[in-house]
This record gives sequence, C-alpha cells and structure tokens, in this order.
Amino acid sequence: MAAPEPTLTTPPTTTAASEAISTTATVRDAALAARGSATRLSTTTGAERDAALTAIARRLTASSGRILAANRQDVAAAREAGRSTTVLDRLTVTEQQLEALAGTARALAAEADPVGEVASGSVMPNGLEVRRIRVPLGVVGVIYEGRPNVTVDAAALCLKSGNAALLRGSSTARHTNAALVDVMREALADTAVPVDAVQLVPGTTHASVHQLMSLRGLVDVLVPRGGHDLIQTTVRDSMVPVIETGVGNCHVYVDEHADLDKALAILLNAKAQRPSVCNATESLLVHERVAPAFLPRALTALAGHGVTVHGDERVRSFHPAVVPATEEDWGREYLSLDLAAAVVGSLESAIDHIRRYGSGHTEAIVTDSQSAARRFVAALDTAVVAVNASTRFADGGELGLGTELGISTQKLHARGPMGLTALTTTKYVLVGDGHIRGGAAAPLP
Amino acid sequence: MAAPEPTLTTPPTTTAASEAISTTATVRDAALAARGSATRLSTTTGAERDAALTAIARRLTASSGRILAANRQDVAAAREAGRSTTVLDRLTVTEQQLEALAGTARALAAEADPVGEVASGSVMPNGLEVRRIRVPLGVVGVIYEGRPNVTVDAAALCLKSGNAALLRGSSTARHTNAALVDVMREALADTAVPVDAVQLVPGTTHASVHQLMSLRGLVDVLVPRGGHDLIQTTVRDSMVPVIETGVGNCHVYVDEHADLDKALAILLNAKAQRPSVCNATESLLVHERVAPAFLPRALTALAGHGVTVHGDERVRSFHPAVVPATEEDWGREYLSLDLAAAVVGSLESAIDHIRRYGSGHTEAIVTDSQSAARRFVAALDTAVVAVNASTRFADGGELGLGTELGISTQKLHARGPMGLTALTTTKYVLVGDGHIRGGAAAPLP
Repeated sequence: MAAPEPTLTTPPTTTAASEAISTTATVRDAALAARGSATRLSTTTGAERDAALTAIARRLTASSGRILAANRQDVAAAREAGRSTTVLDRLTVTEQQLEALAGTARALAAEADPVGEVASGSVMPNGLEVRRIRVPLGVVGVIYEGRPNVTVDAAALCLKSGNAALLRGSSTARHTNAALVDVMREALADTAVPVDAVQLVPGTTHASVHQLMSLRGLVDVLVPRGGHDLIQTTVRDSMVPVIETGVGNCHVYVDEHADLDKALAILLNAKAQRPSVCNATESLLVHERVAPAFLPRALTALAGHGVTVHGDERVRSFHPAVVPATEEDWGREYLSLDLAAAVVGSLESAIDHIRRYGSGHTEAIVTDSQSAARRFVAALDTAVVAVNASTRFADGGELGLGTELGISTQKLHARGPMGLTALTTTKYVLVGDGHIRGGAAAPLP
Repeated sequence: MAAPEPTLTTPPTTTAASEAISTTATVRDAALAARGSATRLSTTTGAERDAALTAIARRLTASSGRILAANRQDVAAAREAGRSTTVLDRLTVTEQQLEALAGTARALAAEADPVGEVASGSVMPNGLEVRRIRVPLGVVGVIYEGRPNVTVDAAALCLKSGNAALLRGSSTARHTNAALVDVMREALADTAVPVDAVQLVPGTTHASVHQLMSLRGLVDVLVPRGGHDLIQTTVRDSMVPVIETGVGNCHVYVDEHADLDKALAILLNAKAQRPSVCNATESLLVHERVAPAFLPRALTALAGHGVTVHGDERVRSFHPAVVPATEEDWGREYLSLDLAAAVVGSLESAIDHIRRYGSGHTEAIVTDSQSAARRFVAALDTAVVAVNASTRFADGGELGLGTELGISTQKLHARGPMGLTALTTTKYVLVGDGHIRGGAAAPLP
C-alpha cells in the first residue's frame, strides 16, 4: 500500500505563494491525522509496537531496490545542482546503511518498553492510591536536514515510545524520504499500529516548517536534529515546545592533585577517540603546579595523534608545535583534531574559565583530591560532570539508557543524555473507593 | 538595607520610547545580577537557604507597618483610577495576609530540600559510578498580575529550591511589591543567600515583560501566574522556556457500574466543595442505564448546594431546575456553582466527549468495573485521572508533594500537580578511576 497523500485544498501550482497556501492546509491535515493515530497508538501494547518495528525492519530490507533507486534520483539532482561532497555523502544511502537502519528498528524492538513504567507511587494516609505512570507524548515532529537515515531512526524511536511521528526532512532528500516513509507505512498496514503514525510533512518550502512550528496543541513536541542553525531557528520560532540538543565545548581539567598517567589517558581518549562528536573534548586546562610534568608529555602524545593544539603562552612554552590560541578558540566546538589549551593558576580559575566558555554539556576533572572533585562537581552548571573519567562517557548507551535520542543541554524536561523516556510524559492515576476531599465535604442528602 | 537600583544606562524620562530603551538595559542588568547570584546560591546548603527563609518571615512581620502603608498607596491609586472591586480585593494586603505570607516562608523552611536528591543512580559494568542529582534551574522569572502575595510566595519557592527569582508584578501593585522585595532583600543581607537572588524586574511597561521573555540563556524558565490570557501571551511570545499551568474543565463520569452513593458524594465534593479552583469539576456525564436512578437524586442535591445545572435534553427531563446547555457549556471552566451535564450511551461516548471538550487537567470515573476503569484510565490523555475519587485530589498537598507550585497541563518537564522539584533540573555526575571509553582508546605513549 502506498502512502495516501493528504488532500490538497487547492490544486498544486508551481508558484511559491500558492504552495505556501496549500502547504498550510496539508501540514495541518497531516497533524490532525497524526493526532488521531496517536490516540489509537497510546492504547497499543508494547508487544504490538515491537511487532510493528520488526515489520518495518523486514520491509526496509525487502524494499531496498526501490529505496536505493529513489536515493539515486536525489543524489543525481544534488550533484547536478552542484552541491558539496559533504552534502552528497550525507545524502547517499547504501545497501549497507539501509541494513543498519533495519537493524536499529530491530534493536529498538528488543529494548524495554518505556511506556507504562510506574515512575513513582505511594498510598496516601487516607488510603488513596497514587501512581505516576509513563505515557507517550502524543505527536512528535522531527525537523532534520539532508540525512535520510533520520527518517527511519526518528520514526522507530517515536513508535517504540508510543508516539506518532511527523517527519520533516530536507527537500534534497525528498524522493528517498518519500520511499522510506512509503515502505514504513506499508509495513504498518498489517500491524496494530495505525499507518498514519508515520507521516512525511507535506511541502518542501520553509512555509511548511513554520506551519509545523505553529501547531501548538496538535503537535506535542518538536525535535530538531541537525546543526546549530537548525536548532536555534526551531527554538526561536516554534510555538510548539522543543527538545533541544546542543553544542559541546567540553573541557578536561587536570588538577594539581591529578594522577598524570590517568590524566593523559583520559585526555587522549576524550580528544582523539572520536573527535567529530559533541562529547569529545575541545579544551584542556592544566593546573600550573603540574604543567611542567604533564604538558611536555601530553603535547607530544597529542601531536602523535595528529592533534593541533591551540595554546596560551604558557602552554606554548612547553612544545614548539603548539599554535597560538585566539580568544575565539576558548569557545569553539572544533569537532576535529584541534584542542584549545591553557594553564590555570588554581581550581577556581579553571572553574571560572569553564563558566565563561563552556556550553553546559560535559566537563571533566582529573584529580585524586576529594575536596577538589566535590568543588568542581558543585560549582559547574552543566548537564554532565565527570570525575576521573573521559567526557566521552556522556552518552546514553554508556550510561545504560538504551538507544540515545541525543544529548540535551537544555534544563527543562530532559538534561544530558536522553533515552526513550525523553519522548514520554507522565499521568497521575489516583484510585480511591469513594474518596472525597476533607474539610467542607458536602454531606449526602 | 534598601534594594540597590540597577544603573540606568540613560537618564529616566517620562516618554514611553525612552522607557522602552532604559528598561531594555535594566531588565538585562537585573537578569545578569540574578545570574551571578544564582551561581553562588547553587552552592549554598539547604540549612543556609532555610535560615534565609526564616529571616524573611521574621522581617516581613517586623516590617508590616511599612508594607501596609505602601499597599494603601497602591489601593488608593487603583480606587482613584476607578478599578473594579475584584481588582481592589486582590490588591489589598491585610496584617493577617502578611502573617500568612510569613507563615508560607516558615513552612517552606521546614520542608525537605529538593536540591541534591539522587534522582537515579547505578554503577555501570565497567565500574563507572553514575548518579543523576537534582540541582536548581538557576534564574526563574515569575510574571504575575495584581496579587502582591505572589511576590513573597514566588520568591520563597525559588529560594527553597536554590533559584534566583526575577519578579515581574503588575504596575497596579508597584509600591507594595517594591516594599515586599526591599524587606526580603534586607532580610537576605545577613544570610548566606545573596541579596540579588530576589529582585523586582525594573520597568512597568509591557516592554519590560517582553525584554524578560527574550533573555534566553540568562533566564532559565518563566512561570506565568495568573489568568488564561497572561499564560497564553507568555507561552506565545517567550523565547525563554515556560512552565505553564492551565485551565481545568474537569469531568466526573458516572458509569453504569457505579456505586451511586459514592458517585453522589464524589460529584458534590468535586463540584461544590471549592468551585473557584481549577480541579473543581465543571462537567458531569452519566451513563443512560443509571441516569433514572442517579439523576433525580443528584440534581436535587446539586440544587440544594446552590449549583445551576446546564443540561442536555435528557438531563433536563429529570429535574425542572436544569437550564438548557449550549455547545459552549461543554468546554467551559465555570469556576463557579455551575455544572454542565449530559447523559451518554456508553463508556466510549463518555471518553469521546471528554476527548473533545476536556482540557487535559483531571478526569474522574465512578465505577465498580475493573475493565471500565482500566479503559477510562488508558484512553484519556490528561494530567490526572481519578477512579472513584474526587477531582479535587489533583493537588500537590493531597498527593504528598509538599508546597504546590501549580498544576501543569503541559506535557514536557512537569505534568499535573507540581511540587518544588518542578523548579529543579538534574545533573549527571560520573565518577571513575581513570575510565576511558573502549574500542579505539588511545594508547599511552
């Protein structure tokens, strides 16, 4: 079964103005259909949703020819339009990647159900039973850029957590996304999960994104997945609440009481194991008392790993390969084999530096001093703080949260690595036996 | 000590345009000062914050003459401006009310500290210790209308939870609010809590509210406290995340399997015990099989409590005092001794009705049927659902949450009755012993 297109209220034309109008209607239609499906979806069992995920995985594999053909169309168009190699790389879907996407859906099916968990509960002194249970958010909108893998990834995360997914990908990937969504909806047709629980937002102009962002009440949350600009635009313009993932300017601070072997291992792991991710370390701070013992060794090791160090004057005095740091370097999220580095006079100077330049993602201290660790942990307003451990542990999988949705640097709802529970809310269930509130309770007539 | 005024960047003048400019600067200055104080506040102990609350309570009582004099000034001005009795009532502060406000601060001092609680924690297989601990949000902005009691109430809730409070009251109450904030800051001067942790937002024009709503990054959350319009404006216009409390169109559904004595007691309690609050019931739905046995008795009892019932035709057939319901009645939050009432053909019709007209606050079913209760609980997307209990139990105090911040009808961050933890976020603390992430970990040189 092919995905039925929401009815256009006006015949499609090619002018931008009329697309804006027709999009306005159809985005709302899609959201209404999603809302309807979410109501049914919220009463499916975990087993039914897992069966739907397995069906999706199976059908993705079975439909690889069709999906890859659609993808070739998008890639050819992007190449013709002179898009960069980076764009083309992100856009291209291989047989292997498709298999990995099917694997994600299968892996999610095997995870524990986040829905229905009793988050807290008790019996009040009057005998009223109180439970706070996890329930789906409802309709989740996902706005993303030219990576078609997000289409499957986001849909699978939403279905696992009992939410309907409204997917708004880039127009660059429109044929690929349409094929992926068609295939997923075909798979759902034979399951207990309603087909409309997975939908592509119609329209490819900015008007359709803004319409999506205006649907407060119909859409429960928006999750922007992509670069800094996409996230900032969504946060600024959306009337719908946003779950924000953020920038990681993570620091490693080597304290005067650090075990320098551990410090070096942590630094190299934090910087060089996977430099392109948000929990990789971007800045190194070293206490001046250990700088002479630590920095020559560390700078040589970093150079050996291909890391370019942007250092202040004192750091530069320890190694000829260090380039001068500018003010801008202290706030950079390089996502590359670059590292800003400074010598600090005290723990408090390190804290001040991080307060000034940190992004509230993950900060690490290496120290054997209990009091230094305690102060560092308490003083920094950040999603994750690590003591004698690499910043790379700021990760849902490493913290036992299952499949990770992203790392939140916002403070409301979810902060730090987010598992599937970030796509749920809670509902209070009160069970009594004719309980009424005391005081001026009305007497029976 | 009087509250130091933030420096104006331009001399104050009386034209609206220049107030907009000077306000722009000073609201930001106030937020910067609050942010600085929040950093210090976040490392105070619970005992230090409780001592500050006690000092505030003491000084409010000791300064009653000054506060009441300021209040008389506001009341006189409002009377002269021809404001309504309702406005004057809300604005007036009595000696007794001031004592009650001091009592709130004292009661909060006696409650458990929400900060530092380990929300979850474990040790990972590799020995990495993981704890998620509760920490203050930082700077909380509170926007409210002409009730000066919110000034003390909101400041005390913020201090208890380790947050700095930026208070933006109504210009109608400006002398009262200024006196209350002065007194609270004087009290803080002798405590470990920084004075700038309690501040009035400078400026009384709408420009200052909009400036506050734009300070994303400096202000962590806005809490609008007041009517529907204030809340909607804040939600729509704020760049800062909002904690929203909402409208309660709560229903009681009397199922065909209800114990009718319990149903009547619950209905009267839910409607008539305190009709002016959001967890009071506004709509009654009765299954047609029990309508003949239940409604004559219930309608007589409701009339005896002074309740005007707005009923559909079938309800009206049971009692002459029932007035006809219009379509509008099904969606109303009366907050008065009025009740919309309808007879429904089935549990599913009741669910459909509530899905259509409910506000997602609190819904109650009275039934002895396990399957009906189970279906009702699962089918409704609402903050609270009550089985055989009054909707009036949707209350932080009744659910053991301590002092209540309000009842959230939003889904992110907090839903349902909110205690002090709604003013906190969490921080992951990871403790290792030189832990690095596996796989391609960098070897020691």
